[in-house]
Amino acid sequence: MKVSQVLGERFKERAFEIESQNLMTRGGYMKLVGNGIYSLFTPTKRIQNKIEQILREEMDAIDGQEVLFPVVMPATIWQQSGRWDSIGKELLRFKDRSGADMVLGMTHEEAAVHMAMNVAGTYQKYPFMIYQIQTKFRDEPRARGGLIRVREFTMKDAYSFHTTQADLEAYYQRAYRAYERIYARAGVPEVVAVKSDSGMMGGKVSHEFMLLCDIGEDSIVTCPACGYRANMEAAECIVENDASDAPEPLREVFTGDAKTIEEVCALLKSDAKKSCKAVVYQRNADDSYVLIFTRGDLEINETKLTNTLKAEIHPAVEIDAANLAAGNIGPVHLETSATVLYDRSIQDAVNLVCGANRAEYHYTGFTPARDLPADTEYLDLSKTQDGFACPSCHKHSLKISRGIEVGNIFQLGKRYTEAMGMTFDDPNGNRVNPIMGCYGIGVGRLIASVCEVRHDEYGPIWPITIAPWQVEVCALRVDNPDVRAAADRLYKELTDAGVEVLYDDRAVSAGVLFSDADLFGCPLRVIVSPKTLARGCYELSARDKSFREDIDPAAAVPEIFRKMAELTAAINEKVPERL
Amino acid sequence: MKVSQVLGERFKERAFEIESQNLMTRGGYMKLVGNGIYSLFTPTKRIQNKIEQILREEMDAIDGQEVLFPVVMPATIWQQSGRWDSIGKELLRFKDRSGADMVLGMTHEEAAVHMAMNVAGTYQKYPFMIYQIQTKFRDEPRARGGLIRVREFTMKDAYSFHTTQADLEAYYQRAYRAYERIYARAGVPEVVAVKSDSGMMGGKVSHEFMLLCDIGEDSIVTCPACGYRANMEAAECIVENDASDAPEPLREVFTGDAKTIEEVCALLKSDAKKSCKAVVYQRNADDSYVLIFTRGDLEINETKLTNTLKAEIHPAVEIDAANLAAGNIGPVHLETSATVLYDRSIQDAVNLVCGANRAEYHYTGFTPARDLPADTEYLDLSKTQDGFACPSCHKHSLKISRGIEVGNIFQLGKRYTEAMGMTFDDPNGNRVNPIMGCYGIGVGRLIASVCEVRHDEYGPIWPITIAPWQVEVCALRVDNPDVRAAADRLYKELTDAGVEVLYDDRAVSAGVLFSDADLFGCPLRVIVSPKTLARGCYELSARDKSFREDIDPAAAVPEIFRKMAELTAAINEKVPERL
Repeated sequence: MKVSQVLGERFKERAFEIESQNLMTRGGYMKLVGNGIYSLFTPTKRIQNKIEQILREEMDAIDGQEVLFPVVMPATIWQQSGRWDSIGKELLRFKDRSGADMVLGMTHEEAAVHMAMNVAGTYQKYPFMIYQIQTKFRDEPRARGGLIRVREFTMKDAYSFHTTQADLEAYYQRAYRAYERIYARAGVPEVVAVKSDSGMMGGKVSHEFMLLCDIGEDSIVTCPACGYRANMEAAECIVENDASDAPEPLREVFTGDAKTIEEVCALLKSDAKKSCKAVVYQRNADDSYVLIFTRGDLEINETKLTNTLKAEIHPAVEIDAANLAAGNIGPVHLETSATVLYDRSIQDAVNLVCGANRAEYHYTGFTPARDLPADTEYLDLSKTQDGFACPSCHKHSLKISRGIEVGNIFQLGKRYTEAMGMTFDDPNGNRVNPIMGCYGIGVGRLIASVCEVRHDEYGPIWPITIAPWQVEVCALRVDNPDVRAAADRLYKELTDAGVEVLYDDRAVSAGVLFSDADLFGCPLRVIVSPKTLARGCYELSARDKSFREDIDPAAAVPEIFRKMAELTAAINEKVPERL
Repeated sequence: MKVSQVLGERFKERAFEIESQNLMTRGGYMKLVGNGIYSLFTPTKRIQNKIEQILREEMDAIDGQEVLFPVVMPATIWQQSGRWDSIGKELLRFKDRSGADMVLGMTHEEAAVHMAMNVAGTYQKYPFMIYQIQTKFRDEPRARGGLIRVREFTMKDAYSFHTTQADLEAYYQRAYRAYERIYARAGVPEVVAVKSDSGMMGGKVSHEFMLLCDIGEDSIVTCPACGYRANMEAAECIVENDASDAPEPLREVFTGDAKTIEEVCALLKSDAKKSCKAVVYQRNADDSYVLIFTRGDLEINETKLTNTLKAEIHPAVEIDAANLAAGNIGPVHLETSATVLYDRSIQDAVNLVCGANRAEYHYTGFTPARDLPADTEYLDLSKTQDGFACPSCHKHSLKISRGIEVGNIFQLGKRYTEAMGMTFDDPNGNRVNPIMGCYGIGVGRLIASVCEVRHDEYGPIWPITIAPWQVEVCALRVDNPDVRAAADRLYKELTDAGVEVLYDDRAVSAGVLFSDADLFGCPLRVIVSPKTLARGCYELSARDKSFREDIDPAAAVPEIFRKMAELTAAINEKVPERL
């Protein structure tokens, strides 16, 4: 394809802070149509097609069969699963012309069960896996980062059905490996799987596949010592307190206007670790209050809290109705109608500062083991931190990083098949609900994520396996008939040989030509110019600057093939074997 | 793939009247999720992927570049084009979580202009064509026929942009040929292009591609004498009247309860051709009345009427408000506030029966040239009929057939670029609106249409170019170790050789195996059974029953390849050259 024919404009001005969004905007990859909704120009669509092909091959290799579910679904199947009620506004609901309630698919567990129901009624039909590559819509309140977080996106979603948990677990391992292969084939073998919380999907065991990078929205907890990995939501928080002090008496002290735990600790010259703070939430359903006491230096892990309460929650907007002394709430002599929970971090602590449930006063010397009832339950409700003890090897080596979630896999269990009444006859003639797994990858987010970790200041550096074109031929000074003839010939030879070539034969300056080429990000570049021809050669270089060499025009095609094979091999050698 | 792994059940009971819907339901191709909304099982998805690949190749060959527009679009761009107001309920409108008006894309002219705007500001960037293969939703009131008419469907839609009408017309010819190639490559070279009315798309010249078959919803007018083809909406109606009678005086006659033109003609022993009937419509916008007088044996062409009025209309529900004598409305001495139109069919007629605008009375002897004002305008508002004169060669050879519309192409002109303010600078520095064409093919409808014309009573007969699998290997009596070993080996050899093979190794009766194979519709079938092995062979046959032969197991793979090549060549020889 010729650059002059590629619709889209490229420009130099910085467009956005997030580098993938900046470069993909500056490079003419996409255009915003509405909040979180993009049209994709042909370079992006070409990358997407290649990723889709990798996804198909890897899904087929784990016995997946491609199907297609609808984008628009009747509410009925979502009512059967219970998610019509349990999911918030991110599930877009509307009425069709007949007044029937409909939804836009943001995930397709219901559709998968609907499809498989009635056609998998005996155990012999199991296991099976169905997948699709299809548009999804999630009415995100916070679209951001270009294709990183959008409302409409293309997703590969797969659903497996099993007769036993053991069979699901064995299949889950194959899917896990398939995912590792997918990321490696897409040129980002550094993607890591982390244990995750299953959230609204239901089920117990799940993993997120994370690409570590600074702009990631997720916090990932890793232990370099033992290889433990979890996302923040799922990571156990192990807190160790200095319990060597002798407990002092509980003493009420005047703290005046000091309200936040930072202010109080500053006033009392105490370390935040030697304090106990109160955090107040409300249940979404009825605005009832939930009060958590945790160590002053920790943050509440809202996912753990939600799971504990089995209810959606939000930080309390105002706490007047709870009859609580805002800024002076403490666990001793507390009278409240709120649900009160205690974090494990305070269990063995001594001599903490905490609120006295009276304006302008706090306690010192709070020692939970002494001051709280003996049967108090302490729960894991806080976020772990850098340097905390690893839940696996117990070394103080935990590291918190940022990551983009580029895929996830879930052991769903019977959550959907039970709710929707899907059964099969087992060998004993009993009707049993099948056990499900599900496996998702957002294509657009993966593209943006690859760009985020494979670029330089001039543009994306696309891995050859997903690059929109493998080679860009740059003709410098096309007004020179020798350049024109040589570049035209090379373009034709490469195209005829099956190479995907982008050909820049525009009469533009070298500056424009090279900055555009950097933005197109093709892994290989061939320059044909009066200078190279004077040297009797073309110049072949890699977008990642790993080499630059003169090549003999007569042997250009085989030499380019050799380099393409090298780049491909470098990617393939990091792809693990299939399970 | 093994039949035992293919999700979906096949059954014998007739499911629907329309044969493609019946066979694709009985064959486990699809499952209804909601009114006009289907999930597609893997055989259908495999066919769809092959058609999509053909579409990509043909669109790329006419310099198309694949892009992706959103399914969900903000109302704003539809308001810019004016279609937010002009399209009815088939455009699904809803609000997102922020209360913004959104639509589900039923076509993407607006999105195409939005994408191309600001990146095609000078004439040098033209022409270009962008296309996508994407889900669309049209809130059809009358979903029917399985995948023939649905609400959600996958569509290839393409949009070309030009600086001159001549350039559009030249490109239109290339697109027209690409379409002929697409249908031929999909195994239905008999698809014909007919002139069509452009309807809501705007623009003037357009063609529909029609697959003639009895279940088609469209009426197609063809002239075997000269090759004229149009759809009914666009076909000129040429009426010839016997004008040899001498005009008789206008005479009022008592017709009592006779209201319809059939009743009146029966009573007066007159031919319907010798009558003038009144047909009443109402404008959708304000319910105002439109009254058309046409010859008694003709039907109103609502598309022509809509185009004449430049307004959407519907048959009048009740006409009391119009002050008209229902059943006795006539063109003479008529007093009405309705818009009155006269069809060409009565222009030179003499001595017609018509209503007398008075209950229980009609006129005879109505002769428009005498009885209507001299400046009366006569319009082409009726549907042509079998045996009427051809608008092209004027022979009385017109034939009316039924057809399914499997694609369409439009010369849109500046309809959208003007409305949305897209311009480019021409060589003289003037800002000009580009001229557009658009080109659509619904993938699911094409699949169902192919099935409709390529099946027998037992199942679909898929053309090899789009078949879900090219070959089905049927192992009869897999409990026989020789059969099992031979069939397993053949399956492996063919798969290793790159053939798409469906392998039925289930322990089922020959009856089930063959009836399932008929429903899968693979073009080639290999039977491995104790009988064939006893003869020292496998049996190779075609789904279309064109041959059945014993083949040497040692040479099975090359022989199957030879037959695949023959079937492919038979399709390819009907594919016209590219323009």
